[in-house]
Amino acid sequence: MSLISEKAALLLIDIQKGLDEVAFYGAGRNNPGAEQQAAALLDRWRSLGLPIFHIRHSSQNPDSPLHASKNGFSIKEVVKPLNGEPVITKNVNSAFIGTNLLELLKQVPTQTVVLAGLTTNHCVSSTARMAGNLGLKTFVVSDAVAAFDNRDLNGKHLDAELMHQTALASIQEEFAMVTDTDHILSLLKT
Amino acid sequence: MSLISEKAALLLIDIQKGLDEVAFYGAGRNNPGAEQQAAALLDRWRSLGLPIFHIRHSSQNPDSPLHASKNGFSIKEVVKPLNGEPVITKNVNSAFIGTNLLELLKQVPTQTVVLAGLTTNHCVSSTARMAGNLGLKTFVVSDAVAAFDNRDLNGKHLDAELMHQTALASIQEEFAMVTDTDHILSLLKT
Repeated sequence: MSLISEKAALLLIDIQKGLDEVAFYGAGRNNPGAEQQAAALLDRWRSLGLPIFHIRHSSQNPDSPLHASKNGFSIKEVVKPLNGEPVITKNVNSAFIGTNLLELLKQVPTQTVVLAGLTTNHCVSSTARMAGNLGLKTFVVSDAVAAFDNRDLNGKHLDAELMHQTALASIQEEFAMVTDTDHILSLLKT
Repeated sequence: MSLISEKAALLLIDIQKGLDEVAFYGAGRNNPGAEQQAAALLDRWRSLGLPIFHIRHSSQNPDSPLHASKNGFSIKEVVKPLNGEPVITKNVNSAFIGTNLLELLKQVPTQTVVLAGLTTNHCVSSTARMAGNLGLKTFVVSDAVAAFDNRDLNGKHLDAELMHQTALASIQEEFAMVTDTDHILSLLKT
């Protein structure tokens, strides 16, 4: 298997400045290096000329740091799109709902996607689940995604790392292959 | 709010005999009473004449207990469809992919769905996520869904109850309202 011959598409999901707003999202996040891993993937994808799709979330909630009127809507510098790279704007968690992402993948054409970004259990999981269910060969890069602390139905604290690990366990083998940046880069050796 | 005036649709997901096959799914499951709670919802839905959709999974894996050739493909007796009740067959986790479920909901017409069935973190979560992202008002009934034991990326055991609770926490308020059978029944008082 070669991700190069399959023209694997890199989907960078919601790596936006607003996700750093602690007052809205809380301080409890795992994988602080996720963005750097996503940037390493992006560099390799660019050098190989493989398809890249930047996905950004446009919240319909005017108070959200991801509302299009806010500075937080911008994609982080570390993975900033270059001129000409497609940027897809979505309003819900799944990058396949209300967008033309599936058509764009067919135009490449490719049946393989590699997902990185935020957050593991919300937008990454939703997009990975749909990608897998739509028949795409789907990879989720475990060290290039991250989650936030949460609470269970009784208000009990759920740690970001636990949310991340259980979300990945739910995806693994059912919807996607969960692997890490080093492994993905090894599949891109020329 | 009244679920009656909204013509809320009950979606019973993958409550199939094959899910009891321990050799395939393992013995570690939480909420052993989930099917009975789903049956209580079904009874009320029938008595009120509200829309009901039975969803069943037709696995493409010939070894799966949910392959259409197997006894396990049958819906469990406790929630067995009556003649005339729609039964929707799906091949993937989300009940909205490869089916006409969304069209059928529009024909009712209704914008509200109540989800029960198996499993919390796979087919229920995937269907709830898509329902919410498609703009439907979505309820997931916490005591009428259940999960199985799992393993994290390092092979560490993850208990069914933990998979269930973290899956519900990821859905809650982001995609759906997570509540219990008693609360749903209280919203159906005539």
